Amino acid sequence: MSSSIDFWFSVGSTYTYLSVMRLEAVERQSQVKFRWRPFDVRAIMIEMDNLPFTHKPIKARYMWRDIERRAKTHGLPWSGIPPYPIKYLPFATRIALVGAKEGWCAQYVKAAYQRWFINGHDPSIEPDLSGALEDIGQNPQRVIAIASSEETKAALTSETDSARALGIFGSPTIVSDGEIFWGDDRIEDAIQWHRHLT
Amino acid sequence: MSSSIDFWFSVGSTYTYLSVMRLEAVERQSQVKFRWRPFDVRAIMIEMDNLPFTHKPIKARYMWRDIERRAKTHGLPWSGIPPYPIKYLPFATRIALVGAKEGWCAQYVKAAYQRWFINGHDPSIEPDLSGALEDIGQNPQRVIAIASSEETKAALTSETDSARALGIFGSPTIVSDGEIFWGDDRIEDAIQWHRHLT
Repeated sequence: MSSSIDFWFSVGSTYTYLSVMRLEAVERQSQVKFRWRPFDVRAIMIEMDNLPFTHKPIKARYMWRDIERRAKTHGLPWSGIPPYPIKYLPFATRIALVGAKEGWCAQYVKAAYQRWFINGHDPSIEPDLSGALEDIGQNPQRVIAIASSEETKAALTSETDSARALGIFGSPTIVSDGEIFWGDDRIEDAIQWHRHLT
Repeated sequence: MSSSIDFWFSVGSTYTYLSVMRLEAVERQSQVKFRWRPFDVRAIMIEMDNLPFTHKPIKARYMWRDIERRAKTHGLPWSGIPPYPIKYLPFATRIALVGAKEGWCAQYVKAAYQRWFINGHDPSIEPDLSGALEDIGQNPQRVIAIASSEETKAALTSETDSARALGIFGSPTIVSDGEIFWGDDRIEDAIQWHRHLT
């Protein structure tokens, strides 16, 4: 049995804000270490004909209220509804993938969500795209060049294929030994499950 | 401020199984009393272009697995995936509405879900339609006649209008003082919210 637990996500998913901001605390409390796995949730949602919240105003209104309430429950900041959707979800997620290879994925993703949810700026466009990288001491020009390469595009497609093969259809999703848990509100269930295995 | 807390649901919703079967225990533990409010979630989902799980095999597979896991967490029985969707959701929900007027709603709904999820039979068709009523000592012929009346049809439409006006789009939804909480997994959040008000 595998002892790894994976945190699959896209930069641009709304509920993912909650997970990104609390995952370190969850790791400390649970002594479980998550592997950050960026994938393109938008590609899978389009394939599955899952309409985004932009087309569903009533559900969207509820979603923001729910995220606001749960942010408060978790002691996370809330500065009102951020711009949505972000313009370049796959590109911001490719930057996270570069970070996963180089070891600064979690830092970058937190910086991007800080700018998105707390400052209210789209982190997939300038100046916040470069800004989030500067926040964590990465050279924007260098990283953006790597994220724009065919190699990184292919890598994200490959990771998205892996997510699809696991049955993932939303962000965030936690996976332990092939068992999938969708949503920030399933993190604790996923940890329970993972504990029974290891 | 209102001191009531409402449990809005349709007989035929899948996750509602979890709530229906644990709500009495939740009431005992929390000392909060829920008012059972049947409404036609299918009508609202059709209006909102929310495709049911029948058209989404990957999400449906996840949903059943999630319900199975959460049933176990709550100590509820699980006998495998039940027939889905049930044939006459609005009719079964109209029976629940008759029960709400006459004082046996919760009993009926539990009997119907017992037959659906535990015995694996569609509770909206015979023999389980009458069977669930017999289980709780109600005369099926009498109740089915009332549930088939124009008056009961109009009453369900009116309740569904009230649900829509509150911003409800799924079953179950808990409402306390206009604040809505969607899903069995938000019952505890709803109780917390309700406590702050009363």
